[in-house]
Amino acid sequence: MIDMTTADLNGALEDAGLASMNFLNEIAGRYPDAIAFAAGRPAETDFRLDDLHEHLDRYCRYLREERGLGEAEVQRTIFQYGPTNGVIRELVARNLHVDEGITVDPESIVVTVGCQEAMFLTLRALRAREADVLLAVAPTYVGLTGAARLVDLPVLPVATGTAGIDLDDMMRTVRAARRTGLRVRGCYVMPDFANPSGASMDTDTRKRLLDVAESEDFLLLEDNPYGLFHTGQDRLPTLKALDHGRRVVYLGSYAKTALPGVRVGYVVADQPVRTRSGETRSLAEQLGKIKSMVTVNTSPVAQAIVGGKLLATDCSLAAANEGIRARYADNMARMLAGLARRFPAGGPVTWNAPAGGFFVVVTVPFPVDDELLVHSAEQHRLLWTPMSHFYGGTGGEHQLRLSVSVVTPAEIETGLDALAALVAERLG
Amino acid sequence: MIDMTTADLNGALEDAGLASMNFLNEIAGRYPDAIAFAAGRPAETDFRLDDLHEHLDRYCRYLREERGLGEAEVQRTIFQYGPTNGVIRELVARNLHVDEGITVDPESIVVTVGCQEAMFLTLRALRAREADVLLAVAPTYVGLTGAARLVDLPVLPVATGTAGIDLDDMMRTVRAARRTGLRVRGCYVMPDFANPSGASMDTDTRKRLLDVAESEDFLLLEDNPYGLFHTGQDRLPTLKALDHGRRVVYLGSYAKTALPGVRVGYVVADQPVRTRSGETRSLAEQLGKIKSMVTVNTSPVAQAIVGGKLLATDCSLAAANEGIRARYADNMARMLAGLARRFPAGGPVTWNAPAGGFFVVVTVPFPVDDELLVHSAEQHRLLWTPMSHFYGGTGGEHQLRLSVSVVTPAEIETGLDALAALVAERLG
Repeated sequence: MIDMTTADLNGALEDAGLASMNFLNEIAGRYPDAIAFAAGRPAETDFRLDDLHEHLDRYCRYLREERGLGEAEVQRTIFQYGPTNGVIRELVARNLHVDEGITVDPESIVVTVGCQEAMFLTLRALRAREADVLLAVAPTYVGLTGAARLVDLPVLPVATGTAGIDLDDMMRTVRAARRTGLRVRGCYVMPDFANPSGASMDTDTRKRLLDVAESEDFLLLEDNPYGLFHTGQDRLPTLKALDHGRRVVYLGSYAKTALPGVRVGYVVADQPVRTRSGETRSLAEQLGKIKSMVTVNTSPVAQAIVGGKLLATDCSLAAANEGIRARYADNMARMLAGLARRFPAGGPVTWNAPAGGFFVVVTVPFPVDDELLVHSAEQHRLLWTPMSHFYGGTGGEHQLRLSVSVVTPAEIETGLDALAALVAERLG
Repeated sequence: MIDMTTADLNGALEDAGLASMNFLNEIAGRYPDAIAFAAGRPAETDFRLDDLHEHLDRYCRYLREERGLGEAEVQRTIFQYGPTNGVIRELVARNLHVDEGITVDPESIVVTVGCQEAMFLTLRALRAREADVLLAVAPTYVGLTGAARLVDLPVLPVATGTAGIDLDDMMRTVRAARRTGLRVRGCYVMPDFANPSGASMDTDTRKRLLDVAESEDFLLLEDNPYGLFHTGQDRLPTLKALDHGRRVVYLGSYAKTALPGVRVGYVVADQPVRTRSGETRSLAEQLGKIKSMVTVNTSPVAQAIVGGKLLATDCSLAAANEGIRARYADNMARMLAGLARRFPAGGPVTWNAPAGGFFVVVTVPFPVDDELLVHSAEQHRLLWTPMSHFYGGTGGEHQLRLSVSVVTPAEIETGLDALAALVAERLG
């Protein structure tokens, strides 16, 4: 009989990051009736099973009518193994053009199994030697640190500061890394309504960040799952839209803007890469080689469903998501107003005021840890996320993250009452 | 402007294995009208777009009627992010019970993005230290060697011999590895109609292989994409069905037996793993932790389609595939008879006689390389695969692999005429 321990297995399995994700999911599963200020998933109001059939049929019509495919070719496209880098790249490129003002060659795109695989492939490609490191604005998404851990790529934190990224801290970190012989491959950023901080970068900061990436010669990994969900202001240009030096690898998600259940994301990697034989290929092509050994290709059926959704919306998910955007914005306003009603200005409880996205960060004058979360779930029927999970070390010990994405207006009020009770209990 | 070379990126990208896969795909794409003896994909006769709708609807009915889910829960199951390890594990377990006589707890299963991800997750988990190595019967599937390369796990070849695996060679390889301080984590095998060799192991060899894994304390990674496609003999038990010591990690594919285009596979990993805190969990749970950082979860929509297909067939894909099995068997018989008619016994051209699967290996008295393949495609309109691609070093230099999976009886005759012309040209 076999006898194994986790110590026999890959070190990442004993890592805090991976355990963290599991713990948070497990807690959410254990208290299904608690108010879900912890959830990061999109709202469920717009799900209709018939949509799947309609999207699939619409994509097949497009293959026949716009692409001129015969019936056997349509079937082959949907049913067979497909090209590694995807079958809907043309539609993804149109979507980027319409919604983000980003113009890219479809050949620079790899359609992936959600944004997570886009991240994983990029990190696997960039991690070439032991000295390689990645920067990431801290606090950061646990999926990024987890993927980095799996490819043995250390992540060095850069402070968020007041501008969404503290560029001075970034320069200090880069220099300190280089002094110890490390090679900085890139910096992971979420310029719009970051998870978990809710912070955004202004346009000037975005431009300066691009300048730093150029002068210091590394890549920016831009992750943009929440960009469409602003609270009413003008949207700012993505880094990729401002990128003239091909410094930005753009990580795209359709989980929040189309359908989480198809697991379709993408990466734009238009960086030229010279091969040993002297040819110039794209980074996307290199990522495709890695993808062929991880998942072979993204399900063409899943791609077809997203393709159909894009076709149904003239490739504008911004327009298609206007209703849900307004709902998230309303929830955000309600959450911020509700916090203000319950916690007086100048008091010990403070919070930020994100201009969009799913998340608000609340700072309290007592330690916030997993034990407090379990207590909150059991005694107050309230779930949220300890911010310390997003620091992968020290940081966030007095902060919690509240999400507005799946709760109703009534649940926001009930949840904030529960939060006020929890805070009163701790303070008194 | 960025300036990168492949040398700046992960070393796997300059590896022969990854280049190999790309080259073979590229050649197939360049000569779409050539006879496809190179293809490894399943036949396309049974594809109907309506099936996708029906499978999806059937799975939703099952959730409502058999699982008692309300409409909101059905929608959440299909549309939202789902549990990392999958939503159709219960049906996969039933399928394994019905078709393979394997009884496993659904909790031991992780539903993956095709069998490739199953392989990748397993290798990532097993590779803990620099000294770790994997054994694999050579010649072997390029997806295995590619995935191993991505996780920096060297693969040591074990000879196929006459029994599908040469156990003496295996023992020699294990001992030699240990003498140099290496730790053997497992051995990758395809006991039924292997890709690319077509070889199968008899039952006695399977049992002895399990004994060796037990006495030498490593795992067997059993990959079984072709098991249902025998040519008429009784099917032999899988290693997993014979496994009493939890030595076998079973890698499952639905690409050939259900639908390639949904990219759904799975891994059975019922090995107990003791954690640092002294609890016993399953290897499946550990693989799930890794999966959460690679693809988060397998598309529930894709899983639902496979689930519907399983429900439609009472979870017996063996029964559902009887028609296509007979077709492959007929093609195999035709291919073997066609070879015998064109190349006289006792002559310089020889081949094996697989008892199932997609592939026949032909040995010729001249070098078989990529250059010859290009010549064959251009001058003879015939595609096949140089066996050297499956050795990752030396081996197979006089062999080519012929596939029977997507060709018609007429194409088999035309293709073999072309092969005979190519051989005559080389010999004369």
